[in-house]
Amino acid sequence: MRIAIVGSGALGLFYGAKLAKAGHDVRFLLRRDYEVIMAKGLTVHSVEGDFHLDKVQGFRSPAEIGVVELVVVGLKTFANDRFGELITPLVGQETLILTLQNGLGNEELLAELFGAERILGGVAYLCSNRGEPGVIHHLSQGRIAIGNYSSRDPRRVEPIAEVFRTAGVDCRVVADLVRVRWEKLVWNIPFNGICALAQKPVDALLNHNRTRQLILQMMVEVIVAANAQGLSEDIDTALAEQMVVFSRSLGPYKPSMQIDREEGRPLELAFIFGNPLRLAAAKGVVMPRVEELYALLELGEKSGENF
Amino acid sequence: MRIAIVGSGALGLFYGAKLAKAGHDVRFLLRRDYEVIMAKGLTVHSVEGDFHLDKVQGFRSPAEIGVVELVVVGLKTFANDRFGELITPLVGQETLILTLQNGLGNEELLAELFGAERILGGVAYLCSNRGEPGVIHHLSQGRIAIGNYSSRDPRRVEPIAEVFRTAGVDCRVVADLVRVRWEKLVWNIPFNGICALAQKPVDALLNHNRTRQLILQMMVEVIVAANAQGLSEDIDTALAEQMVVFSRSLGPYKPSMQIDREEGRPLELAFIFGNPLRLAAAKGVVMPRVEELYALLELGEKSGENF
Repeated sequence: MRIAIVGSGALGLFYGAKLAKAGHDVRFLLRRDYEVIMAKGLTVHSVEGDFHLDKVQGFRSPAEIGVVELVVVGLKTFANDRFGELITPLVGQETLILTLQNGLGNEELLAELFGAERILGGVAYLCSNRGEPGVIHHLSQGRIAIGNYSSRDPRRVEPIAEVFRTAGVDCRVVADLVRVRWEKLVWNIPFNGICALAQKPVDALLNHNRTRQLILQMMVEVIVAANAQGLSEDIDTALAEQMVVFSRSLGPYKPSMQIDREEGRPLELAFIFGNPLRLAAAKGVVMPRVEELYALLELGEKSGENF
Repeated sequence: MRIAIVGSGALGLFYGAKLAKAGHDVRFLLRRDYEVIMAKGLTVHSVEGDFHLDKVQGFRSPAEIGVVELVVVGLKTFANDRFGELITPLVGQETLILTLQNGLGNEELLAELFGAERILGGVAYLCSNRGEPGVIHHLSQGRIAIGNYSSRDPRRVEPIAEVFRTAGVDCRVVADLVRVRWEKLVWNIPFNGICALAQKPVDALLNHNRTRQLILQMMVEVIVAANAQGLSEDIDTALAEQMVVFSRSLGPYKPSMQIDREEGRPLELAFIFGNPLRLAAAKGVVMPRVEELYALLELGEKSGENF
């Protein structure tokens, strides 16, 4: 399958490398690491076994990539205003677009630009970081859950799931994409937010009693907001405790938002905090703890003064 | 009047200097600035007019100071475990102890050690910072409100208030000390907390919409908790809006907790956050936003891991 990777960060490079290794025609839109990757290829240090791709199809512009069958979007959401420019040249009659970005509202934006019927969405349960240029560290997990944006019909999604599975990625098809997006936010909102704000990794948060309590309470706020959205099935509030227990296994893991702040990038606040808060409020649900974290994170942004 | 100043920071030095200038026998317990102040005296740059004291009675230990009529306590509350050591040598039969410290629980500790009947408490509405050694910057305000700890009888407090007034300090006697303490927390909890956490001054918080909203909501949480304590008169929730409007006049003011963090000192978390939260919970009042700020501040402390 001809696949374009738009947003070649820790996520896009990882799944793109897996798909390329499995023999797919994978075309990476590259920016800062173009030279290194074209010269030296791509190395994945993975808990599932290291591998190296000698030859990588990298491109500097979407026009050079041309039309593909599948666009995998792994862009940071603060760059979503570039969807039109970056994706339009890749889209033909039959092209599907799969966003694996974080937060809520990505599919909606893509649907406005390219039509709802070609949009798939998914969440990636992936712990990966970039190392030196051309190197990805895959620390744990890696499974994805994908679904149709415009309907709960799984038929068009199944072949795409199969593409990932043959590349060694555990890929589940879900009927209710909105539900898995919220489910992931139950983790992302407290951990991405607090790790970024405090500049401390996951285990530091869990080792501090008050912060661990805060995380649990914040997770319950997100679950209550999620369940107000009319999901196919309610999210059990017990998920909060399960996620905290699971997160112990991550050790000193730095979530992406913490790394974004360390490296001076903008934070994905609008899609991970702003849109969920807006959707919760629309259903009459207040999330005071999430709202506070959003305010404090935004206050810390360079652009956070005088607005 | 013979007065000892214990805790010669921005607050203790300011009021001590005013009292000494008025002719009182003021004895400062000094630590880091002892040499400079003994050699050069004390300079107060004040919005009410600058002044300089050539000769200052500074001491390195409370035993050298000896018994006084009034002890003014301006210690940072994280040093309250030193009350016994620092204050005992100053206390005779008739000695009164006035704490102008922040937060809740200071009078209780002093009463346990020295007897409730000699304890006065007060809050200082003072914007002052230390400059170079021996220099205090008095930026705005300066009034204090003091009251009896063990009863609402103002008679023993009145002469002490008069001492401050003759020294040019606007000093009000209040019957309900608990009420003014909570009233001050309405400001201290959000502004000290958020300025310290974000390392941004008062005007940066007020210029950011979400943070300004958060401050108002947090102030209402504190007012509700205060009114659950059985005050002589409820605190009007309109105080929140009034305080935000007033705070605009402070400009880029850094509250003491922000300076404590900048300078690597511990933060006054137990007395400004912990005790109010405990007293609120005892009356069945939850303050989710205050609780979150407390957790995030404590997480940031050097001692904030693994407990």
